Amino acid sequence: MDNAIARVKDFLEAHRTTAEQFLSEFLAIPSVSADPQHRPDMKRAAEWVAQFFSQMGLAAELIQSPTGHPVVYAETPHCEGMPTVLIYGHYDVQPAEDPTLWQTPPFEPTIRGGAIYARGASDDKGQVLTHLLSVGAWYQVTKSWPLNFKFVIEGEEEVGSSVLEKFLDEQADRLACDCIVISDGNQFGPDQPAITYGLRGIAYFELRVKGPHRDLHSGSFGGTVTNPATALTRMLGQFMTQDGRVAIPGFYDDVLPLSNEERRRLRELPFDEPAFWASLGVETAWGEPGYTVLERRWARPTFEVCGLWGGYQGDGAKTVIPANAGAKISFRLVPHQDPDRIREALLSYLAQICPPGVQYEVIDLHASPAVLTSLDSPYIKAAENAVKMAFSRSPVFTREGGSIPIVSRFQQRLGADVLLLGWGQDDDNTHAPNEKFSLADFHRGTLASAYLWEFIRQIGKATDS
Amino acid sequence: MDNAIARVKDFLEAHRTTAEQFLSEFLAIPSVSADPQHRPDMKRAAEWVAQFFSQMGLAAELIQSPTGHPVVYAETPHCEGMPTVLIYGHYDVQPAEDPTLWQTPPFEPTIRGGAIYARGASDDKGQVLTHLLSVGAWYQVTKSWPLNFKFVIEGEEEVGSSVLEKFLDEQADRLACDCIVISDGNQFGPDQPAITYGLRGIAYFELRVKGPHRDLHSGSFGGTVTNPATALTRMLGQFMTQDGRVAIPGFYDDVLPLSNEERRRLRELPFDEPAFWASLGVETAWGEPGYTVLERRWARPTFEVCGLWGGYQGDGAKTVIPANAGAKISFRLVPHQDPDRIREALLSYLAQICPPGVQYEVIDLHASPAVLTSLDSPYIKAAENAVKMAFSRSPVFTREGGSIPIVSRFQQRLGADVLLLGWGQDDDNTHAPNEKFSLADFHRGTLASAYLWEFIRQIGKATDS
Repeated sequence: MDNAIARVKDFLEAHRTTAEQFLSEFLAIPSVSADPQHRPDMKRAAEWVAQFFSQMGLAAELIQSPTGHPVVYAETPHCEGMPTVLIYGHYDVQPAEDPTLWQTPPFEPTIRGGAIYARGASDDKGQVLTHLLSVGAWYQVTKSWPLNFKFVIEGEEEVGSSVLEKFLDEQADRLACDCIVISDGNQFGPDQPAITYGLRGIAYFELRVKGPHRDLHSGSFGGTVTNPATALTRMLGQFMTQDGRVAIPGFYDDVLPLSNEERRRLRELPFDEPAFWASLGVETAWGEPGYTVLERRWARPTFEVCGLWGGYQGDGAKTVIPANAGAKISFRLVPHQDPDRIREALLSYLAQICPPGVQYEVIDLHASPAVLTSLDSPYIKAAENAVKMAFSRSPVFTREGGSIPIVSRFQQRLGADVLLLGWGQDDDNTHAPNEKFSLADFHRGTLASAYLWEFIRQIGKATDS
Repeated sequence: MDNAIARVKDFLEAHRTTAEQFLSEFLAIPSVSADPQHRPDMKRAAEWVAQFFSQMGLAAELIQSPTGHPVVYAETPHCEGMPTVLIYGHYDVQPAEDPTLWQTPPFEPTIRGGAIYARGASDDKGQVLTHLLSVGAWYQVTKSWPLNFKFVIEGEEEVGSSVLEKFLDEQADRLACDCIVISDGNQFGPDQPAITYGLRGIAYFELRVKGPHRDLHSGSFGGTVTNPATALTRMLGQFMTQDGRVAIPGFYDDVLPLSNEERRRLRELPFDEPAFWASLGVETAWGEPGYTVLERRWARPTFEVCGLWGGYQGDGAKTVIPANAGAKISFRLVPHQDPDRIREALLSYLAQICPPGVQYEVIDLHASPAVLTSLDSPYIKAAENAVKMAFSRSPVFTREGGSIPIVSRFQQRLGADVLLLGWGQDDDNTHAPNEKFSLADFHRGTLASAYLWEFIRQIGKATDS
């Protein structure tokens, strides 16, 4: 069995064409979860995944709900003493939108220039398939499962994961695992694979400010009542200090500081700051002092006004004191910050800074803590080795500024380490016309996945001995 | 000739029914300036006014433009040595909008409960007619004009006065006068007539803030760039001090302070503050410290956010750093504040407080200085006496918080004192369904107007001697 991985590698190389055919089949199903017209296609895609498990020798279960799209769930027969890996991915895709913007139709997968073009190629059908193919190859070559696997392939990643959330709430025990593997993101750059070990969390609110019970003429009444729009800007204007820190008392209390080792690693990443600014069309960097751009993006909490409204927004002038104004505000959170405590700090601060004469209301829209897997995790080491073998290059270790709520939920519920192994590239046009996925990355990702099971197996053995 | 005014009074009393018939005729014409479908009605209304002058023995001129609605202009033969009074009003009306909200059709004038109901009854056909009737009565009784009159009755008060503005720009000399009389507002309350001697001015701008050249994901980019919506709130949040003053340096430099005498008069006005707050649905007064509510409404400058926008305004959460954000902002100005200087102060302040990483643009939307007629003006005294005679009650002296740009233009161009003699009531439903005008106020207004010419005549005589 010691040369099993070599034989798996050979198998994968010999079956590249078959792998690409599977991918094409999968991509040809227009599984747009947001569009009710594609409901039959969603069913077809779920069944295609279930059928794939069946070909691997595994019985798949469709976790259903009356309104949502099914989660396809499968697991290998439990083998005591082996680590258990949960593989998460999704078979639903974003709408293709305007077909005239696509060089080839979004649901007619086409290979050109070494990449396969289709909606869902990179996000996430191509990436999820790498893991299914690698596990399948292991079984075909060795007639046994290298690890205990649980597969959770959902159909609502793009529309809110309602079925999966319920599944997690009700049957978390079934999903118990040692490690969660997710490939639904990008490498650091061309030929520079990355392992993402952290995500920021989020606390997102709507703030509504209410003043007089109707809009008032700003001439007749200006100066006598608190204007809700003015009050809103006054309040929000006090959310950040002049130098770019969040001004809410207690906001930074629980923040896990970056270690010197981590800061060193981040500094070593090849990050072209002038190119970054140019790509955004801004001239000046701005943010919390004392941190690099990547530290601020990935590992420091922030405050943002995501939406703002009140009064007259049309052409010309309307002289009005609006009765109401509001904002969508979000905080990006980092490890050890608790969304509930942030909410409490926000409420205390608002009570302190709200001017007299208006009332406000805070509506909770979204909360999810940050995710962080220790760089000392043996699974991180296993992934590092696996990626190095498949890509002939050491991965860099990155964090993400965004939040993936389901990942946070997995980590909270299952308490397992999370490996985010994105095989995509920044120019894959996910959520945009002409989405693509490099076939080289598809095959390297599959091979890295095969190696990952080998290296995790070795952890299992090391722990056993 | 000394008992002329007594005979004019008798004449007006004897011809009340005729006056009401004229008013009904005028109100039956649906002269909605905003609605192109009513263009023929606008022409009819202008001709009705011209015809009225013709019956008075005056040739009226229609000042036209290819796109606007005509100004009806008439003047009495110039008599050297007599004061010249310009009477301004408008024959256009607001749209009637939903006819089901009217108890009787908006353009079928109906008398009930001592008031005439129709669109335009109070704003402004009924009020403008008081002056036409009083001048006509003087002529019928005395066979001569008591003063030099110039009549400017426009058809675009509700839609921007384009023709009148041009007329003023090009032929201000023709409109030279000593005093401008306008009745297009309200009394202080039921049976409490008022003379309005001041209006606030306005400087209204759009402030646009621009950041990255596209919307950015607030997770991936939050903390690295200046968020234009956050920047906007930060800037606007610094426009007022904590205690309610405008924070822009120099803003108050030119403000004409209220005299002790004026403050005493304002304090004596019967103003029910709790009722005022209750009517607005607010619990707490707020505004510049050291001034009463009426002083803040009428005689102190202010800052207001009239509109606010940026980013996501829909349901739920969208995690976005908007590329742009903006606001409509206005300053209400008081006498001696110059809109141009306020604009300069605004621009300097923005340059000082704008955070790095965003650009801003200021668009001028509207500017008009305040209007103030001295309480020592002989025309104010004449109006006070005239109102007292007709209403059997001394008028109170009030200012208005709003701006009437055309009044400001008149005062700037013609340098004459302005008398704002509103015969309406706050519950006349102007700009709303069931607009009405009390017939008692219609006739008292006409009589006050007749007395006004008598008292202005006496000024002329006093000056002569």
